[in-house]
Order: sequence, then C-alpha cells, then structure tokens
Amino acid sequence: MAQVGIVMGSDSDMPIMAKAADILDQLGVSYEMTIISAHREPDVFFEYAKSAEEKGFKVIIAGAGMAAHLPGMCAAIFPMPVIGIPMHTTSLGGRDSLYSIVQMPTGIPVATVAINGGANAGILAAKILATSDADLLARLKEYSKNLKEQVEAKDARLQEVGYKNY
Amino acid sequence: MAQVGIVMGSDSDMPIMAKAADILDQLGVSYEMTIISAHREPDVFFEYAKSAEEKGFKVIIAGAGMAAHLPGMCAAIFPMPVIGIPMHTTSLGGRDSLYSIVQMPTGIPVATVAINGGANAGILAAKILATSDADLLARLKEYSKNLKEQVEAKDARLQEVGYKNY
Amino acid sequence: MAQVGIVMGSDSDMPIMAKAADILDQLGVSYEMTIISAHREPDVFFEYAKSAEEKGFKVIIAGAGMAAHLPGMCAAIFPMPVIGIPMHTTSLGGRDSLYSIVQMPTGIPVATVAINGGANAGILAAKILATSDADLLARLKEYSKNLKEQVEAKDARLQEVGYKNY
Amino acid sequence: MAQVGIVMGSDSDMPIMAKAADILDQLGVSYEMTIISAHREPDVFFEYAKSAEEKGFKVIIAGAGMAAHLPGMCAAIFPMPVIGIPMHTTSLGGRDSLYSIVQMPTGIPVATVAINGGANAGILAAKILATSDADLLARLKEYSKNLKEQVEAKDARLQEVGYKNY
Amino acid sequence: MAQVGIVMGSDSDMPIMAKAADILDQLGVSYEMTIISAHREPDVFFEYAKSAEEKGFKVIIAGAGMAAHLPGMCAAIFPMPVIGIPMHTTSLGGRDSLYSIVQMPTGIPVATVAINGGANAGILAAKILATSDADLLARLKEYSKNLKEQVEAKDARLQEVGYKNY
Amino acid sequence: MAQVGIVMGSDSDMPIMAKAADILDQLGVSYEMTIISAHREPDVFFEYAKSAEEKGFKVIIAGAGMAAHLPGMCAAIFPMPVIGIPMHTTSLGGRDSLYSIVQMPTGIPVATVAINGGANAGILAAKILATSDADLLARLKEYSKNLKEQVEAKDARLQEVGYKNY
Amino acid sequence: MAQVGIVMGSDSDMPIMAKAADILDQLGVSYEMTIISAHREPDVFFEYAKSAEEKGFKVIIAGAGMAAHLPGMCAAIFPMPVIGIPMHTTSLGGRDSLYSIVQMPTGIPVATVAINGGANAGILAAKILATSDADLLARLKEYSKNLKEQVEAKDARLQEVGYKNY
Amino acid sequence: MAQVGIVMGSDSDMPIMAKAADILDQLGVSYEMTIISAHREPDVFFEYAKSAEEKGFKVIIAGAGMAAHLPGMCAAIFPMPVIGIPMHTTSLGGRDSLYSIVQMPTGIPVATVAINGGANAGILAAKILATSDADLLARLKEYSKNLKEQVEAKDARLQEVGYKNY
Repeated sequence: MAQVGIVMGSDSDMPIMAKAADILDQLGVSYEMTIISAHREPDVFFEYAKSAEEKGFKVIIAGAGMAAHLPGMCAAIFPMPVIGIPMHTTSLGGRDSLYSIVQMPTGIPVATVAINGGANAGILAAKILATSDADLLARLKEYSKNLKEQVEAKDARLQEVGYKNY
Repeated sequence: MAQVGIVMGSDSDMPIMAKAADILDQLGVSYEMTIISAHREPDVFFEYAKSAEEKGFKVIIAGAGMAAHLPGMCAAIFPMPVIGIPMHTTSLGGRDSLYSIVQMPTGIPVATVAINGGANAGILAAKILATSDADLLARLKEYSKNLKEQVEAKDARLQEVGYKNY
Repeated sequence: MAQVGIVMGSDSDMPIMAKAADILDQLGVSYEMTIISAHREPDVFFEYAKSAEEKGFKVIIAGAGMAAHLPGMCAAIFPMPVIGIPMHTTSLGGRDSLYSIVQMPTGIPVATVAINGGANAGILAAKILATSDADLLARLKEYSKNLKEQVEAKDARLQEVGYKNY
Repeated sequence: MAQVGIVMGSDSDMPIMAKAADILDQLGVSYEMTIISAHREPDVFFEYAKSAEEKGFKVIIAGAGMAAHLPGMCAAIFPMPVIGIPMHTTSLGGRDSLYSIVQMPTGIPVATVAINGGANAGILAAKILATSDADLLARLKEYSKNLKEQVEAKDARLQEVGYKNY
Repeated sequence: MAQVGIVMGSDSDMPIMAKAADILDQLGVSYEMTIISAHREPDVFFEYAKSAEEKGFKVIIAGAGMAAHLPGMCAAIFPMPVIGIPMHTTSLGGRDSLYSIVQMPTGIPVATVAINGGANAGILAAKILATSDADLLARLKEYSKNLKEQVEAKDARLQEVGYKNY
Repeated sequence: MAQVGIVMGSDSDMPIMAKAADILDQLGVSYEMTIISAHREPDVFFEYAKSAEEKGFKVIIAGAGMAAHLPGMCAAIFPMPVIGIPMHTTSLGGRDSLYSIVQMPTGIPVATVAINGGANAGILAAKILATSDADLLARLKEYSKNLKEQVEAKDARLQEVGYKNY
Repeated sequence: MAQVGIVMGSDSDMPIMAKAADILDQLGVSYEMTIISAHREPDVFFEYAKSAEEKGFKVIIAGAGMAAHLPGMCAAIFPMPVIGIPMHTTSLGGRDSLYSIVQMPTGIPVATVAINGGANAGILAAKILATSDADLLARLKEYSKNLKEQVEAKDARLQEVGYKNY
Repeated sequence: MAQVGIVMGSDSDMPIMAKAADILDQLGVSYEMTIISAHREPDVFFEYAKSAEEKGFKVIIAGAGMAAHLPGMCAAIFPMPVIGIPMHTTSLGGRDSLYSIVQMPTGIPVATVAINGGANAGILAAKILATSDADLLARLKEYSKNLKEQVEAKDARLQEVGYKNY
C-alpha cells in the first residue's frame, strides 16, 4: 500500500515527475506512479481520484502543463493534501501551468511548488508524512544536512582554488 | 429542450453570464442556466456534463475565474463545442482565468472569448447554431446591422455637435 | 464546396495550420486552405471574407502572429464562427498574438484556441459542424476514444517497465 | 481640407482622442474627427481608409482598445503615417491594446505612442507635418519651450516654499 | 501545545491571516498566531523558526507580501511543511509575492496557495494534519459537504427565481 | 545632406538597424548611420541630437535595448519625429526595451515600432518624408504592391502544390 | 553643501520623493531637492548632473515614472552612486518605470529600489554615506532597532488582545 | 581586510558573480568571494551576515535566482549597502529573481541592478566606496572614459567601412 500517489497527465511530464519519485525512494517513502489525463479520460481520472483514499494514499503529487487541471481536480475529490507541479511551457514559460494550479478558489487548496519543481514536490510530500512519522523526519533532517554539506564543500573548493580556477 | 447550456462555477459570475443569456434571448436561442462547481461538487458536475448531450444541448457556455477548470472539464466530457469565458480577477486581471481556459492541450479545445466577454460568448453560441439554422443566421445579420447603425449614429452626432460638446 | 476555410497571413504559419488540415482530413471534413494577408493585401482579404459564406464555408479557421488582425477582421465580415489560432512569437511568446485575437470587443467574437493550437482549431471546427451532423459527431467520439486509449497504453507501459525504464 | 484624420473605434475612446485634437488646435493643425469601427462596420471603415489620401490627410491618428485592429488596418490601406494610440483596459491595463498596435509585421508600421497617449499622438502628428512646414516647426519649438518653463516654475516654487509646503 | 504556527511579517497582513485562523477554529485545529518580520528582526525570526518544532508545531502558515522571504526562510529552518500565502500588492498584483514564495530552489519547498488565499492555507494545514488524524479528516469531509450544499442551494434558488431576479 | 539619421547605442544592434538602412536604400531615401551611446558618452550624444536639425535630418531612427533611453532622449532634443526600435532582450524578451521607448510622458512622443522592427522603422521614416514628397509616396506604393504580389505568389503556389508539398 | 541630491521629473512624484527626504531628515543627512525633467529641459538636466559632483553631492536619488530616463541619465554623468525610484503607473503598475530604471547596460548601474520605494531610497543613501561615517552608521542601527521594536510591540498587542480584537 | 563581500547562493551563479569580481580587480577594490545558501545553511548564512561588518566589509554584493532571498536577508542584518543581482531564470526570465530582490519592504533596501548584471554590481560597489575615496573615484572616471572611447572607436570603424562591411 503506497503512501503517495504520483500522477501526471502526459508522459512528456515524466522527467520532472521522476525527480519526485527519486526523492521519495531516497527518503524511504512508498509511492505509485500513474499516467492519467483528466481531459482525455475523465472517467478513468475520476475513478482514480475517488479510490485514492481507499488505496491508502496520504498525499497525491500531480503534475501538469498549460491549462493544468489535473492537480485542482484531484484536490476537488481527494480529501488529503494534493501537491501540484506546474510544468514549464514553451510559449508562456509555465505561467499558464502555475496560474492554473496555484490560483484555486476557496475550499480546494493545491500545495503548489515551483515550475518544474519535481524534487521539491517529493520533499514536500515527505515533510507532510513526517508530521506523524519521526523516523521519516529524521531522514529529512539528514537530507537537509547533506544539502548543507554540499554547499560547504563547494565554498571550501572556491576558497582553495579561487573563482578563476573554479 | 434547450439548445445551449450556460454554466458557471459561482454565482459571483452571474452578471457576466447574464449577458450571454440576454443575447441568446434577443436572438431567439433557448438555453438553460445552471450553477455548478467542478471543484466543490465534482460528481454533480460530472453528471451534468455527461447528460448534456442527452438533454439536447448543442453548445455549452462555461464561465469561471482564477484556476478556471470548469470550461476545460466540460470540454473533456461534452462532445460538441464548449465556449469558455475567463472571469476578470483582482490580482491577475483575469490572466489566470484566461490561461486556464485557452491553453488546453491537443484534443480538447475550448472556444475562448475575451476576459468578461459574456455577450460575445452568447453571440458565438448563436453563430455556431447558425451553421445549420438559416433563420438564426438572418437574425445574427440583423444584429450586426444594428451594431453598425449604432456606430453610425454616434458618428453622426459627433459630426453634428463636435467633440467638445459630445 | 468546402465546409471550412483555413486562412493564414503568412506561409511561415503553415506548419501550425497544417495540423488543423490534418485533423479535418482525419475526421472527413472538407476544407480549403489559403494564404491571405489582411495587412499586405486588404482588398484581396476583404473579397475573401465577403465571399466566404457564398462559397459554402460554415467555419473559418484563421491563424496569425504578433499584431494578429486576420481572425478578428474575418469575424467582422463572415457571419458564422471564426476560430483564431495565435502563433507563438519569439519576443513575447505569443502573448501579442493571443491578446490580439481573444480580446475582441462586444459583437464580434473569435473562438480562440491555445497558442500554436492548430490541431485543436481543427477539432473545434469539426465540433461546430457536428452540432448538425450526427455522423461527424460519431467520428469525433471515436477520435476521443482513441486519445483515451493512447493514454491508457502509455500508463500500461509505465506499470510494466517502471519509470526508470520508460 | 484637413491634414490629419483622427479616428476611433468607439465613443468611449473620446476623452483620450480629444487630447490629440486639443494639441492640434493649439498648434494650428487642421483635423477631422470620426468614429468608425473596423469590426462593426468594416465596409465603412474600408471606404474611410481608401479615401483618406484623396481627402488630403497626411497623417491618421487611430485609437483603439483591447484587440485593437483599427490602427493596423488603417496602416494596411493608407500610404502615409498612421499613429496608433493603445487604450487603457481594465483587465490587462492596455497591454492587449499596445501589443495589438505596436507588434505590426514587416511592411506595415504603426507609429505607436504610450497607452492613453492622446496628447503625444497629436504632437507626433504635428512633428511629422513639421518636416515640411517651417512655421509649424517653430510653433512646436515654442510648445516645447513652454513645457520647459512650466517645469522651471514648479522647481522655483519648490525652492521657495520647500517640499513640506509644496 | 498548538499544532499550527501562523506567522505574518506585518499586521497589515492580518485580514488574510485571520481567514486561516478562522478555518482552523472551525475545524478544531489548535494554532498560535505571531507577527514576526524576517527582515526587521532577523534574530527574533530565527529563534522562532528554530524553536517551532520544539513548541510542537507540525505545520507553519507564513504570509508575506512584495519580496516575501518569510515563508521560504521558515522552510529553510523548520523541518515540517511550511505553507506560504502570497499577499496581493498594489503595483504588481501579488506576482512579486507569489514568485518570491513559490519559486523556491530544490531542497526547500514552500506549499504555496493562491494570492490572498488565507482560507485555503488553513484548509491545507488541516489536510496535512488529517493524514494522521481520522477525526479531523471526517471534519474536513463534512466541511467539503457543506461547500457542496451551498452551491446546490444557490443553483436551486437560480432555478426557482431565474437569473433576472437572482 | 542626409534626410534620416540612424543611431544605435551599441554595435550589437547593427543587424536590426541595417534593415532600416536597407529599406531606405531601396526607397531612395538618404541616411547617415552612427553609433552613439547616450549612457557611455552623454556629451557626444547631446551634441549629436542638438546638431541633427542643422545637419538636415528630418527624422531620426534610434534603436536601443534594455533600459533604452536613446530614442526618448533624442526626442527630448530633436524637434522632428524620432522613431524608436525596441531591441529584443534575452531575459525580458524586449518588454524592457519596449516600455522604455513607448511609454514616454506627455510632450515628448517617440514613434515606436515592433520589437526588432528595423525594416518597419525604415518604412515609417519614408512614410513620414512622403507626406511632402510625391515621388517617394509613389515608390512606397510600389513597395506595398510588391509585398502584395509576394503573398499572392505564395498562395498561388499553395493552390498548385497543396500544403503537404509546400 | 548637501550630501544628497534628490531629483524628480515631475511634481506628481513629490509624495514619494518626500519620503526619501523625511528619512534623510530623521537620519541627519543633508540634501537638496529639485524638480528637473530630463525630457522637457534636457539642457537644464545636463547642467544639473554635470555640476552635481562640484556641489558636493555624494549620492543622487532620482525618481521617475513610465519611460523613466532620469535615473539612468544621471548615472551616465554623475560618477558616484545614483539611486533610482520607479514610480507606480496606472496602466502597467510601474513595470515600465522599473524596467526603464533597473535594466541599465554594463558600465552605468542605477541602484534600484522597489516601486514607489521612496523611504528605502533615503535609507539606502544613508547606508552609502555610512560606509565612511561611523556616527551615521550608529544612527542607522538605531533606526533599525526602532523598526524591530515596532514589530515587537505589534506582536505583543496581538498576544494580549487576540487577532479578533486586534 | 576586504572592502567588499561577494556572496552567491549556488556555484551556478559563479559566471555572473565573476564579472563583479573582475571589475573590482580592475578598479583596485579588495573583495572576498563566498558561496553561502540562505536556504540550505541558514545558520552559516546568519553567521556570515552578522560578522560581515566586523570583517571590514563596507558593501555586500549578493546574487541569487528564482525565489531569491539572499540579498534581502543580507540587508536585514548587514547595516551598510547590499547590492542584489537577480539571476536569469529559464521559466520566468529572471522576473522571479528581480521581484524577490527589488521589491523589499520599507526599512531594508537592496540596491538592485539588472538581471545578470554582474559587472554593474561591481561598478556600483566601487561607486559607493568612491564616495569617500578620491583615488577610486579617479579610477572610476578613467573606466568611464575607456567605455566612451570604445564606443567612439566602433563608430569610427562604422564611418570608415560602412554598415555592410562592419
């Protein structure tokens, strides 16, 4: 029984959604990844969203581009948190995706992350689950510690070699 | 049996949607107006969109604001034309509504009109029906003629009184 | 006698307009494609728009970029639906085309689709004709079913091979 | 025989267009003001644009809002300069008008001024005529001198009373 | 021991933040509301963010406007979810707040809601806590049911009185 | 004695400015091209703008990018028309250049053309001069006729070979 | 001999520029306020910018709106720091002013503050002077301490009365 | 003891930050370059900002992209000028970085330069230090003179070879 549902409207979104999955793998969170189009197969989508709670999902991560309705429609049906990832788009740079996801009306929030923010969606899902899972919280703190050490290592290298040789 | 379904996500959209209804009244096109929120009552919405063809609708006019999913979700289910009206919004001026409605992915077009373009949505619905209704087409031509005459009357007045007394 | 007129202001718009034609071919809708510039040959354009009804067109699909006046000027003359395709542009990403097409004043709607939305323009034209053509409506439903099956096939493959091997 | 044609698509644009007329009055340039909608009466518009040269116009000032096609369509027909005034709009602040007017394709320039820049359109028309009218050029220089003196007077007052009493 | 920390950078944000508090009251979630400016009192802010976990917060709701750093800086320190509310701004309509909050770099997500989306921030916080609190989940479902009934009541009234008397 | 001054702030703008020169060559209008930076050599610039009338210029074409002050500062000094070309920019697509050029305050208009609209700047300069030069006006009409014929030739080819072989 | 020159292009900018002056008064920094339009009186402006160093100015604060050239042109002439204040504008919300001021080409920086950021311009000027004035630095730290205490007082009141009575 | 601190949130910003360092080298201003992430290592960042005055920094140059909090958070702690460099971003072109840096609330200004304006940040730092360093001021004037000569050389070449051979 997976804790997180990862859903995307098109397989062209896979490279971004994979980053969410990679982070969840790294943090030991179970997930199930699915391609479902709210627009091309609304009944399949509806069934997915309605059965999500029953399947044991605690969080859904939904990614979509352009007029991105998947995250908001998930949030209309699934009673726990839905995280939305706005996809970058060629013409509008992802503003269309961002506005379609973040500007939800009162009553149906979508927890929106940055344009193409796949990794952050995974981390946010883990942070949500960590509100009731001390072990996961510890792993998240370890993850943050690593991020910090990576920056420190880069600065150490800069101090050693100087910016012209960096 | 109404030819056009007019649907809005919130009664705050009524003043704009009413303009569509007024035009359809004027042009002798029957319609049915409904308030349904795709986000707050997704199952009611689904039922509405699925039964729309059966009810005899040939066109749906859907208005929504912010992350505006109603028109696109109608278009995902209803097989004939869906006209989308992006509502003006305080913070983003309606760009959020516009992008959420017009930037639909391949396969599910929404015929989008101007921000707050309620009257034009009604006219477009009539034009669609007029592709197979010569009488309605004649009434549309009459309507256009009136528009023209109104501009001519304004210019006549300008020529008479001058712009300082207009 | 073609049912749909496809018109573009410049042959640089051809790759996008061709997608509309391809869809219409696929759905068995007849069309006539023309290059006419409202700006470079206004009299030829006027003649085209005025004779469109007589030629039997029920819908015009007009594509244009930048200060895109072709769709709106068609809609000013042709009494049945005009579908506008805003072309992507290098500097403004197609916002200039989109605003020039969608923000029409009351009385002269243009049914606007997404930036570079050639295929959707074709589908929308077919949906408009399908309001009085049951056979075409059946073909449109078949087309939608195919779209759905394509997504299902992609998801099936994802479930089989996993996202790392997709 | 007027030197400048001032044309607007709607009488709601009058307050801005009046500023152009006021400046031309002030600078002794003759003009003729008309209300013509390229969208609502395309044939009247065509006639207007085609006969403009014959009527003696050397410059046309055209103002329009939203999907603003009037200036560009004038420029497609009238062989001398067309000045475009983008009208402020509620939803998009006039960006729609601005892009529809300034982003003209190669071959058909519109000399665009600021959003709601009615006075500047009048001044620009006068500057264009002043390229072959030394008296008008002298009046324009006088006008500029007055502008300068107004700023100097304001600064003088500031120096006298201080900003707290200004 | 409160479950949710509500923090704002300025008391001018209070009307929006109050909506989050109202929802949490309604859903029986405990919270603590504080005014802290990351910019004007960085050390107080640091202390707040560092002690938040210890105080028992499971979620922080942070609202800020313009160059809105409060939510992101909370997320840099607090290991569980931070929800960001971008405040509407006069000049940029809240785009500055939105971009400053949602566009976080990899590793430090902020769960962003709509511009001025105070109520949705409260609901999202409750949804997060509901991933491990069945009673709260039940109350959230009840809340959604009420939203649905409100829309149904509005539609019922529309069907009864018609749009002209609505 | 050249009729048109072409001035750019940086030689990186040359490819766009060259299009203006090419058109003027084609239309038989004399010009003088200069590189002057209003920012890097304000005194040289001032001298240039002040002596422009004396040198016989009737029109100045000024191109600049980013915070583009060259056209507006020319217009502040030179009493006849200044045409501004906003250069495309990597980060803001030329919106920065466009706004810096078109949004001039009352009293100092810049006749703005499209982003990167070098050719149109040349044509507009010629149209301005054609208000008092019948021969040039005839050449401009010939130029427009050629534009029209090019479009007609493209359409003829499309009708002959079809869009799939175009 | 004033340390800071405050200059604005129009007296309509006075309310914002006054905030800079108020802060400088408060921090004991001398200044001289002037109204000069780079566009309406370019020679007066030139003289002002050229003599600014001689007059003893160490910093210039320049505010302007729309196509805002005053700050950049000051920076082209004055060799020490120029602080630019972009004025809010009705149509573009101050984006035009912001882009015209901040997007300066290499070699001529303008230290840009927020749209309508008059007070911050004053503080920044003081911070610049404080790099060589320990007393002023001490006063700036005192000023910051006061800001902090104001926020603390607001929070104390919130804790006392609760948000419903705030 | 370095006069200027150069700090960036990620080594991906190095190419832009290096331009600031290059200019400072050229102008004989000492600096210290560091990589510190306000988000990934907030405590390291805090320590850096707090000790900056003690280390002798008179100015900090901070660059960051997306939701760019580094410059503003530096300005919240360091009492002398902070210069912010907004990094270009793929999706929003750097508008996110720009708004996150320039739109600071009253009391905490960041002296913002153009998107990717690394060199200008270096020049601005030098100009700030030059308010109390006559030698540095002389070197800055020399630098400006060189910029001017470079433009003059380009124009000389243009006059010699013509634009077609440039």
